[in-house]
Amino acid sequence: MLKDFVCEKRPSDEEISARLETAREELNKRQMAIKEKKLPVLVLFDGWGGAGKGSVLGKVIKNLDPRFYKTEVLSSPTEEELRRPFLYRYFVRIPEGGKFSFFDDSWMSEITQKYLKEEIDTDEYKRELTSIKRFERQLSDNGYLVIKFFLQIDKKEQSKRLEALEDSKDTNWRVGKWDKWENKHYKECMEIYDDYIEATNQFIAPWYIIDSKNRKWAELQITELMVKSIDIALENHGRAATLLQNTFALEERPLLQDIDLNKTISEEEYQVRLKELQDKLSKLHNRLYRKKVPVIIAYEGWDAAGKGGNIKRLTAALDPRGFEVHPIASPEPAEKNRHYLWRFWKRLPKDGHVAIFDRTWYGRVMVERLEGFCSENDWQRAYNEINEFEKELSDWGAIVIKFWVQIDKDTQLERFTARQNTPEKQWKITDEDWRNREKWDDYEVAINEMIQKTSTVFAPWYVLESNDKHYARIKALEIVVDALEKKLY
Amino acid sequence: MLKDFVCEKRPSDEEISARLETAREELNKRQMAIKEKKLPVLVLFDGWGGAGKGSVLGKVIKNLDPRFYKTEVLSSPTEEELRRPFLYRYFVRIPEGGKFSFFDDSWMSEITQKYLKEEIDTDEYKRELTSIKRFERQLSDNGYLVIKFFLQIDKKEQSKRLEALEDSKDTNWRVGKWDKWENKHYKECMEIYDDYIEATNQFIAPWYIIDSKNRKWAELQITELMVKSIDIALENHGRAATLLQNTFALEERPLLQDIDLNKTISEEEYQVRLKELQDKLSKLHNRLYRKKVPVIIAYEGWDAAGKGGNIKRLTAALDPRGFEVHPIASPEPAEKNRHYLWRFWKRLPKDGHVAIFDRTWYGRVMVERLEGFCSENDWQRAYNEINEFEKELSDWGAIVIKFWVQIDKDTQLERFTARQNTPEKQWKITDEDWRNREKWDDYEVAINEMIQKTSTVFAPWYVLESNDKHYARIKALEIVVDALEKKLY
Repeated sequence: MLKDFVCEKRPSDEEISARLETAREELNKRQMAIKEKKLPVLVLFDGWGGAGKGSVLGKVIKNLDPRFYKTEVLSSPTEEELRRPFLYRYFVRIPEGGKFSFFDDSWMSEITQKYLKEEIDTDEYKRELTSIKRFERQLSDNGYLVIKFFLQIDKKEQSKRLEALEDSKDTNWRVGKWDKWENKHYKECMEIYDDYIEATNQFIAPWYIIDSKNRKWAELQITELMVKSIDIALENHGRAATLLQNTFALEERPLLQDIDLNKTISEEEYQVRLKELQDKLSKLHNRLYRKKVPVIIAYEGWDAAGKGGNIKRLTAALDPRGFEVHPIASPEPAEKNRHYLWRFWKRLPKDGHVAIFDRTWYGRVMVERLEGFCSENDWQRAYNEINEFEKELSDWGAIVIKFWVQIDKDTQLERFTARQNTPEKQWKITDEDWRNREKWDDYEVAINEMIQKTSTVFAPWYVLESNDKHYARIKALEIVVDALEKKLY
Repeated sequence: MLKDFVCEKRPSDEEISARLETAREELNKRQMAIKEKKLPVLVLFDGWGGAGKGSVLGKVIKNLDPRFYKTEVLSSPTEEELRRPFLYRYFVRIPEGGKFSFFDDSWMSEITQKYLKEEIDTDEYKRELTSIKRFERQLSDNGYLVIKFFLQIDKKEQSKRLEALEDSKDTNWRVGKWDKWENKHYKECMEIYDDYIEATNQFIAPWYIIDSKNRKWAELQITELMVKSIDIALENHGRAATLLQNTFALEERPLLQDIDLNKTISEEEYQVRLKELQDKLSKLHNRLYRKKVPVIIAYEGWDAAGKGGNIKRLTAALDPRGFEVHPIASPEPAEKNRHYLWRFWKRLPKDGHVAIFDRTWYGRVMVERLEGFCSENDWQRAYNEINEFEKELSDWGAIVIKFWVQIDKDTQLERFTARQNTPEKQWKITDEDWRNREKWDDYEVAINEMIQKTSTVFAPWYVLESNDKHYARIKALEIVVDALEKKLY
């Protein structure tokens, strides 16, 4: 693509000036439309060092109201960021609905540089390409507009510009080691950029190669393309996205109604096993900290199923410096205005740490589905989106364990009544719990569908039979210990 | 993907038999659902020689009612097919709504073999990958389900199977030269297959790698995946597809209302120029026949604008063995039940030939748009789909010329009235013409949008000012002669 890209022929300077004026006005008008429709817009500026990313970006945003955009200058990842999945630092920076985010250098620069510097091998490079394709498609499916610009100049022009920048004391800081390396190895870089652009040139987020020899012409191309892209995105706004075929290998799981809930454990055995398992877990926690393995444990289950107590038995064995429990309630406005997985990406642990989620991203296909907090298309799409999310975690090296804490309807009633009648437990039971209980059957349908569609080989569901809470706690500990041992030894 | 594909672990023989019975029943049931919803399903079987494509396919269709499917065995292209764009032979074979088409070897086999045999270079290979991605996405956007299977066996297994086939007189015809070459160069082939699969592993038409060491297990995987894919496609059925951003460089064209229709030519000059241009065209026609350049000329214009007479002046200069005029009326049922471009793909000329279309695929964004014969999403998507179609023609080496024959509303009225009042011309005027005339303003909006969005650098629109028909004819001839000269000299 880079080698033979076709773009409009550069018009005369007068024509550029005239068209630029119109285009700027048009882009300016689009701000309000974006705000009104709550369209989030992500604009990526990649390209050769010295191609003018910064200065063109500066000109584009001059037209915009500062309340409507954010710029993100993404140079090398920080220590903190390196301890998370490589997409983490990008995902946490996605804009909220109604706003622009401009990225000066995107994930493209990061992974092509890593690849060129041989910090990652071909397999890892390809894996990251797949992640990127999923990421961009998820954004688009969730209503984001993603516009990708690559600012193109040839080798000669690049070296001329870098020299000019270096010659002046005011600008020589802008020429880094990488820029010089890139110019020296222009052809080699070109090959990789070309490969990257071809691989990620998705229909829903295509690349635009910008002829950047002339700055004003570059600004014009970008401004006009932004206007056109926004218009199409506004047409698409609110349109249901295509459901995708599942391509992840799944593990078979029984339906809730087929689960035997009579499993119990004696008080004595419980105490013995609890001690044993907690001791083991405690040691494993040290080891995973040293080996920098991240662990993500997700808890879902019926109200009063015993999630809280179950989690406590886990955390009791963990070093408090190495884990965090995230209780998940309904989303804040800033969360609601973004991709629904954003708040979970933000809460990902550092490597070597354990994150326990008390309720999770699966809210999308349970409460949000049943209460109509998202559209049918949204929750139908979510199974695949969640599988992709968990694949990302697993590829990063994380252990992902998902527990469904199961009780029957009678047991729930007993526990609700007990809570109601015990003053110090009354805070644990609300009207909402009773309302949810009325929807038991609908929930059961949704939960079965969820478990069937998201028990992937890399992030399977485990059902904890919790009519006997002790039994459920031991089972959870066993599963966690087992998964850690498998990974760590 | 091939190297490290993960699929479900092969179950026991008993389990395979039991699941297969269920899966076959389920697939059988899906036939009626497909028929009811008029869902067209395209199933591609690719994979290693000897992997059992034919025999597994044979088993899968045993379950189906023969009225509901067609199998297409696509070995090497015929002479006739080689003279058309490489996708031609596949496009003309797409199923109609409500039916399956099974392809034993698809476009994958064709292009990977050509590439491995070094019949095409890397640039051509990549170009064809892009075409394939567009083709599959267009099918999906237009309501097709595309399921892609790659039957995987390892080198040893392949060589074992090929030997077994060769050992028997009944089957040794099934082992071709290619199969042996493939086995000998297994690793090299694997690299290319892998590259192809990765490049074309689109979200809307993903690849499924089928572990094919055991035939029954292969059949089970395929049958279950077909059932799941169909269920998702039925959910998607009728859902509007995402509009794509335009990535083709466009040429600027004036709006209809800004066109000067007072252009004329004297009778004398007309006769002189006509003769000159037709002589030139006649010679060029011979040359393009020798050089095997295909030419596609598309005519659109207002009723009574003079398309017919204009076309006649072109064809008068052409050798009748080397051109065809295709008058396009409303589609037949078999055409209506397929991708709307199908009937135009079917009418593509051989290389070295000229095809003239009297009305075209642009009906989608004019009459079909205005009469509601397709959905809003359909015609909005069509601009890009048509640009992609014409890019395909242009990449194939075709000259693509598109004429809009323009007159003003008064001139149309004059001509209508004249037709009405001239007995031998009365057949040329119908009630429909008068009804269309009432929608002049709506048509003008649609035509302007069409010309603005589909005047690509590789297939631009030319407006023929046809208040003076002579002027329009000379202009058309000039444009055609000019385009041919540029390409042929």
